[in-house]
Amino acid sequence: MTLYLNLAELLGARIEQGLYRPGQRLPSVRALSVEHGVSLSTVQQAYRMLEDSGMVSPRPKSGYFVSEGRHLPALPAVSRPAQRPVDISQWEQVLELVRSTPRQDVMQLGRGMPDINSPTLKPLLRSLAQLSRRQDMPGLYYDNIHGNLALREQIARLTLDSGCRLSPADLVVTTGCHEALSCSIRAVCEPGDIVAVDSPSFHGAMQTLKGLGMKALEIPTDPVTGISLEALELALEQWPIKLIQITPSCNNPLGYIMPEARKKALLSLAQRYDVAILEDDVYGDLAYTYPRPRTLKSFDDDGRVLLCSSFSKTLAPGLRIGWVAPGRYLERVLHMKYISTGSTASQPQLAIADFIKAGHYQPHVRRMRSQYQRSRDLMSDWVTRYFPPGTRVSRPQGGFMLWVELPEHFDTLRLNRALLEQGVQIAVGSIFSASGKFRHCLRMNFAALPTPSIEAAVRKVGETALRLLDQDDACA
Amino acid sequence: MTLYLNLAELLGARIEQGLYRPGQRLPSVRALSVEHGVSLSTVQQAYRMLEDSGMVSPRPKSGYFVSEGRHLPALPAVSRPAQRPVDISQWEQVLELVRSTPRQDVMQLGRGMPDINSPTLKPLLRSLAQLSRRQDMPGLYYDNIHGNLALREQIARLTLDSGCRLSPADLVVTTGCHEALSCSIRAVCEPGDIVAVDSPSFHGAMQTLKGLGMKALEIPTDPVTGISLEALELALEQWPIKLIQITPSCNNPLGYIMPEARKKALLSLAQRYDVAILEDDVYGDLAYTYPRPRTLKSFDDDGRVLLCSSFSKTLAPGLRIGWVAPGRYLERVLHMKYISTGSTASQPQLAIADFIKAGHYQPHVRRMRSQYQRSRDLMSDWVTRYFPPGTRVSRPQGGFMLWVELPEHFDTLRLNRALLEQGVQIAVGSIFSASGKFRHCLRMNFAALPTPSIEAAVRKVGETALRLLDQDDACA
Ligand SMILES: Cc1ncc(COP(=O)(O)O)c(C=O)c1O
Ligand SMILES: Cc1ncc(COP(=O)(O)O)c(C=O)c1O
Repeated sequence: MTLYLNLAELLGARIEQGLYRPGQRLPSVRALSVEHGVSLSTVQQAYRMLEDSGMVSPRPKSGYFVSEGRHLPALPAVSRPAQRPVDISQWEQVLELVRSTPRQDVMQLGRGMPDINSPTLKPLLRSLAQLSRRQDMPGLYYDNIHGNLALREQIARLTLDSGCRLSPADLVVTTGCHEALSCSIRAVCEPGDIVAVDSPSFHGAMQTLKGLGMKALEIPTDPVTGISLEALELALEQWPIKLIQITPSCNNPLGYIMPEARKKALLSLAQRYDVAILEDDVYGDLAYTYPRPRTLKSFDDDGRVLLCSSFSKTLAPGLRIGWVAPGRYLERVLHMKYISTGSTASQPQLAIADFIKAGHYQPHVRRMRSQYQRSRDLMSDWVTRYFPPGTRVSRPQGGFMLWVELPEHFDTLRLNRALLEQGVQIAVGSIFSASGKFRHCLRMNFAALPTPSIEAAVRKVGETALRLLDQDDACA
Repeated sequence: MTLYLNLAELLGARIEQGLYRPGQRLPSVRALSVEHGVSLSTVQQAYRMLEDSGMVSPRPKSGYFVSEGRHLPALPAVSRPAQRPVDISQWEQVLELVRSTPRQDVMQLGRGMPDINSPTLKPLLRSLAQLSRRQDMPGLYYDNIHGNLALREQIARLTLDSGCRLSPADLVVTTGCHEALSCSIRAVCEPGDIVAVDSPSFHGAMQTLKGLGMKALEIPTDPVTGISLEALELALEQWPIKLIQITPSCNNPLGYIMPEARKKALLSLAQRYDVAILEDDVYGDLAYTYPRPRTLKSFDDDGRVLLCSSFSKTLAPGLRIGWVAPGRYLERVLHMKYISTGSTASQPQLAIADFIKAGHYQPHVRRMRSQYQRSRDLMSDWVTRYFPPGTRVSRPQGGFMLWVELPEHFDTLRLNRALLEQGVQIAVGSIFSASGKFRHCLRMNFAALPTPSIEAAVRKVGETALRLLDQDDACA
């Protein structure tokens, strides 16, 4: 662990133990720097981390204070999955979720939709319309199998922000991040192989493992710092793991950003045990901090990281444009891409390339991430207000998903059924586990600009959960 | 074999044996009907088949005559592939082909592009542009995993023409026919399984088998009637075949339409040996005859046929919209579709649904198939004129691909390299075989409206082939 993490942990523990009380002034940056023999910027980083987690707040010119006003709900527990490879289940629950069509009459809190109503997205639509009107109809041809060159140039430029130095030739454009994931997994693994995953983990990636005949080994994961390296190392000792599949930046569903030092440590582990890493960075550009976190890929010097992403969360999912930087697996990934869908749709590739080249990407993403950060706070407040006492809530550092943990024996499948009658849909927790754990958890989307009807929907979720809990108590 | 096929074969043999000479009048429909004890329409069907193959021509009011004018080149030989399952090779050659981007300076005769310049396609572009301008931005959302309902309704309606009765619920929209093929194969087979294929066969489908770890068993195939049922039955006796993968209507690359009776016989065989059939119908709507040929699927009463198609050849490939009617494999195909790319791009689905619904599809396809038929004749003539004597040429009954067979020891890889320097690209024959056969064959695209520069390109192919043959002779 790096110094600032150590320090943040220490201060956090002191606050929780009541050594410093709500509203009390904390030691100055300078004092802590002397006390712990670390640099000023290390202390500042530690304070910023505590600030992000809501424990402290800065006051201009007078330093840091223990937060008092808003009471932050407790974080979800560190996950404790079964420590052996399992066959993946839960397809029926996932199907129920992805089978749903956008509908006016249902508030779909369960899906992975970003907000697509920002005016900063307009140039993209204009570009799509213009392409459809061009005489030479570039959108109608098969493009080459690597993907459109202009788009790959722009993607290479964007990844500089996460510390990567990629050239267009290192990239393969795909039909969404989904295809990047499935081509990557197939490029590295054979059916029957074991893949280590963070837990909870994106259902799409897990269903991919299932469909390709692999086994998932779920690793305990901390809701703030991510996959447990200790548990992962034990697992690497014990099992012939081929691939580590992980979403370290703005994790779905937990929202954490794995600290940089842990990212580096994860990469060393992978090198030591000679396994590949599939890094899903689909929410990475939506980190609330600036500059955005570095990718594992940016530290990778021997091509073992396959970095997968898409424009589904930053721009719009209906375009289905993603990409992968497969490192040493490039040739295999290309073959898998060819057999999966042939070349990728031309028009959305060209439109996105135009959009980025004209400088529209950064302002759009900047706007979205501050919108999402504000909505996160509001959504957390609503959960605190309307959900049963004892509910735990994630504190996302990016993206637009909230993970909610209800009392241990609660059944969110039942909750979801009761909610559908009321026109509200959530994502049940069990689909984020290979073996159907997290039945007492759920995921909600806070991408849309907050409205009274969204608040009302969240309230319905909370109140229905309360009602079901009361029923259970009455029966017990 | 059905009666008309029998009769056509008999008459064809008599003509070839010289019993009837060029320009001579053939027996009347009535006379043959009496002689062979078949109906008038059976005789007419036989004559039409001979007409299609260029052997006879009708003269108004005076019956059928043996063709004289144009000398039709001989058809390619029946293929004789190795009669055992093989691992598929040739990825490097395929990659070279699909890696190429549309270029002004290269005449790409090798690719599978339809002509997209017809005015009948304009409403599709208009619809795409309109969708991009709509305030509610329907193109930006994730659609549901089955595909857009409006599109599935239209596809169900279109398939009536091939004798199918499908409902929207029977269909899954995919990212091109590629994805329909790969999801279907994975839904039926496990790695290591044996798949019987027609030979030559579409390289994409074969590379999919390779990528998924299956073995291909290539079955001898007739350039007029398609896969040999006799050889297929022997293979089914001998090997544990899981799936028959086949393009029976407007085959790529040979262009034949398997006669209806043989389609039925193929289905019975599949039932008898309890194997599934993957029917690739991507060119089926481009048959030169009207009504279009029936699909195997239209005779399938126990859900064993997975019918795969797309709008890539009828409309435009850059849209990447295909579909599959997976019969009893629906649930498995859905899972494979989900893990392959998630939901399919929304905007092109909506645009195509609009286009079909507004009645633009049939006129467009009608126009394209008569254009393609005329271009076929012209392209065949050019090959006869410019290619080495002894060259054999397919006689496509639909689509826009010509298969050319050069003398047995000719190497089209060498030819292709020599041609690239001259700005012409062809598809080398070896990619249409699992084991690299057909090295002396090539495929050329005749979709574009004929121009002097296309003729010049075909001439370059022929003359370069002649030059290489002469060099070989000089060396021998
Ligand atoms: C972590 C993660 N990876 C990948 C995806 C899939 O992205 P796409 O829609 O680009 O296929 C999602 C979307 O839900 C996701 O949450
Ligand atoms: C027989 C056949 N099937 C499938 C395909 C792939 O079609 P799509 O571009 O829709 O993926 C092709 C295209 O070349 C083809 O020739």
